[in-house]
Amino acid sequence: MNAELITIGDEILIGQIIDTNSSWIAQRLIELGIDIHQVRSISDNAEHIKKALNSTEADLIILTGGLGPTNDDLTKNTLVEYFETELVFHEAVFKHVNQLLLERGVVVNGLNKEQALLPKDALILENKKGTASGMWFEKSERIVISLPGVPFEMKSIMELEVLPRLKKLNDTAIVHKTIMTQGLPESMLAARIEDWENALPDPLNLSYLPRPGIVRLRLTAKGSDEGFLSKSIDEEIKKLITIIPDHVFAIQDIPLENVLGQLLREKKATVSTAESCTGGQISALITSIEGSSEYYVGSIISYSNEIKRDYLGVSESILEKEGAVSKAAVEKMAISVREKFKTNYSISVSGIAGPGGATEGKPVGYTWIAVASEDKVVSRCYNLGEHRGRNVSKASLSALNLLRLLIMNKI
Amino acid sequence: MNAELITIGDEILIGQIIDTNSSWIAQRLIELGIDIHQVRSISDNAEHIKKALNSTEADLIILTGGLGPTNDDLTKNTLVEYFETELVFHEAVFKHVNQLLLERGVVVNGLNKEQALLPKDALILENKKGTASGMWFEKSERIVISLPGVPFEMKSIMELEVLPRLKKLNDTAIVHKTIMTQGLPESMLAARIEDWENALPDPLNLSYLPRPGIVRLRLTAKGSDEGFLSKSIDEEIKKLITIIPDHVFAIQDIPLENVLGQLLREKKATVSTAESCTGGQISALITSIEGSSEYYVGSIISYSNEIKRDYLGVSESILEKEGAVSKAAVEKMAISVREKFKTNYSISVSGIAGPGGATEGKPVGYTWIAVASEDKVVSRCYNLGEHRGRNVSKASLSALNLLRLLIMNKI
Repeated sequence: MNAELITIGDEILIGQIIDTNSSWIAQRLIELGIDIHQVRSISDNAEHIKKALNSTEADLIILTGGLGPTNDDLTKNTLVEYFETELVFHEAVFKHVNQLLLERGVVVNGLNKEQALLPKDALILENKKGTASGMWFEKSERIVISLPGVPFEMKSIMELEVLPRLKKLNDTAIVHKTIMTQGLPESMLAARIEDWENALPDPLNLSYLPRPGIVRLRLTAKGSDEGFLSKSIDEEIKKLITIIPDHVFAIQDIPLENVLGQLLREKKATVSTAESCTGGQISALITSIEGSSEYYVGSIISYSNEIKRDYLGVSESILEKEGAVSKAAVEKMAISVREKFKTNYSISVSGIAGPGGATEGKPVGYTWIAVASEDKVVSRCYNLGEHRGRNVSKASLSALNLLRLLIMNKI
Repeated sequence: MNAELITIGDEILIGQIIDTNSSWIAQRLIELGIDIHQVRSISDNAEHIKKALNSTEADLIILTGGLGPTNDDLTKNTLVEYFETELVFHEAVFKHVNQLLLERGVVVNGLNKEQALLPKDALILENKKGTASGMWFEKSERIVISLPGVPFEMKSIMELEVLPRLKKLNDTAIVHKTIMTQGLPESMLAARIEDWENALPDPLNLSYLPRPGIVRLRLTAKGSDEGFLSKSIDEEIKKLITIIPDHVFAIQDIPLENVLGQLLREKKATVSTAESCTGGQISALITSIEGSSEYYVGSIISYSNEIKRDYLGVSESILEKEGAVSKAAVEKMAISVREKFKTNYSISVSGIAGPGGATEGKPVGYTWIAVASEDKVVSRCYNLGEHRGRNVSKASLSALNLLRLLIMNKI
């Protein structure tokens, strides 16, 4: 089975929102062995929608968007016309919509009533999280599914209604594994693992998936014998880890902050942070994980030198002689916050995020990171590049990885 | 002129990365009056690329991706074949690539040499930021442009090489304005401005572009008289602001943290934060703005009650009787951090981000926010919903907007 994903809405075509739904749906379908043939965005326009439905070669089409109650959404009516059916009133959906709006404290307005009018010939997919139901059409051996564009509503319907049904319909052996690496840019990583990559056995395929601070390596194998493919991938991953041991932080697609959180939880250890140039990003990453309050207690964000001096004990002498971006400063920051906040570990970062702030010998991107435990403090210097946003991301991820290595006694 | 954007790379089809390039390119083209006909992602596969080129109806096709030095990129060779041309060696590009790698401290490896081999019949678009040049082909009244997929490289080539050339080729009057709102979900906003929306004059069109905590309203007008369209949009925006005055924070597409930063800069005022459930997100938003160190000094992130007590003066009695998520707690947090960090203003947040932590009367999403100045403290209670990540975003943006209103003496 292969699929095409079509996102409907002028918002994407005019560049006002970014299509995150398609990547999420693609991942879920690939897990079921469904190939993604094409992903596209078209405008909220009946002719475009019909043309797209006619021009695709896929067996499965998933449309997202265009089901909301505001005036610019017209997917539902277009599908009714395309599948030559009619709208009928669904009492259960109507009750659900009213209940949901009541809970949210939203005044029930006329806009929302039409959410209960749904196509007669479609299977209606319940939307527990919102007012726009999903729809599943089948015609001429092809499945067309229409879902709301609001990400959490779409995901809820996919998980509860769509994926279980698709799973029953499809079977092909495909194995993917993702190796997460931190700290090597794509081209350096590629050079480092070139020999290994060239020696990969035939059914295996490697992709580089870079983002600031992280490169994901994805090994894919397709064939008939799932057990064999899986074993073959595992063997290659073992070899890879011996080449870049400190850079591999997971062999599944999970964030570094998640890996670090699990490690802290296993050790029953706590962590605090003292951030400067990363401005809260490290803390935001750590606390993005559910239940992080078990191991994270807090941070002192010292964006000014005065806060570094008054609350993190970085002396005037260090600030004057070595500067706020120095080994001495970050080590003191890490030691102070760990002691003050009474945690087992701590992380500190000070750097020049840019575009301003560079001095002689300390260009934009120049960054010091320290991690501390009860026994020791380890600090490292990084040159992260010219771009503010990417510097903050790279510094934050490098800091998390450095603490991971410290906890695992690798540094 | 109309355009199609095609992103090449299995990374997007397998859902491993999200296509942010297309939205950026779409915005730039629309500013030039070029309509976006379709946006799609296809696989890194010669047949798919040729098929996509053959199946589009657009006058302008912009391809991104597939130009990197790693083995899975093959756009360049496919274009050479498609346009029946050949690769020739470009000395200037070769020198630039070597220079760039030298500056980055990357060992020049074989993978990078082929970046200087480029199609004979294409206009080569210089890439100041990276090693993969852009290419501009023209054939049968159609323009095909190929750009690297790395966002900052693509943007650099677009701005310096592509947009100036396209500007010369195209002319149509189109006016867009974006009104930024905070604090009203889409359906509530739609109900609130329904009468105004229905009364919009004919050449004007409204789109809702929601994301957690923010809804952007986009007014678009197309026609022949740019001055008239622009005036007409401005008049409608004035009316809109009188309907939802506290929610509109900008009439251009800029982040709230930017608007707040400008306001603080104008007032020569400083701000500090005391975050709990937002875990650094507010600080990260504020410091995402270049030069924010002029007005932002730092934060105490108190993810545990002990930090709230020991560093923000929230008494045991408040913690026991009212709880860490209460009016009394956030007001004390805001007052303490403002005094300790010696700033003009402060922001504090405490809430139940979820999924755990709910108690009777305080469900997931229950959040208190306070803002303080020298004269007063204002606090408000919010019910933000069930989803951890969105709660953090909504709370952070609501906090920034509350401070904006305080600074402007609107609360």
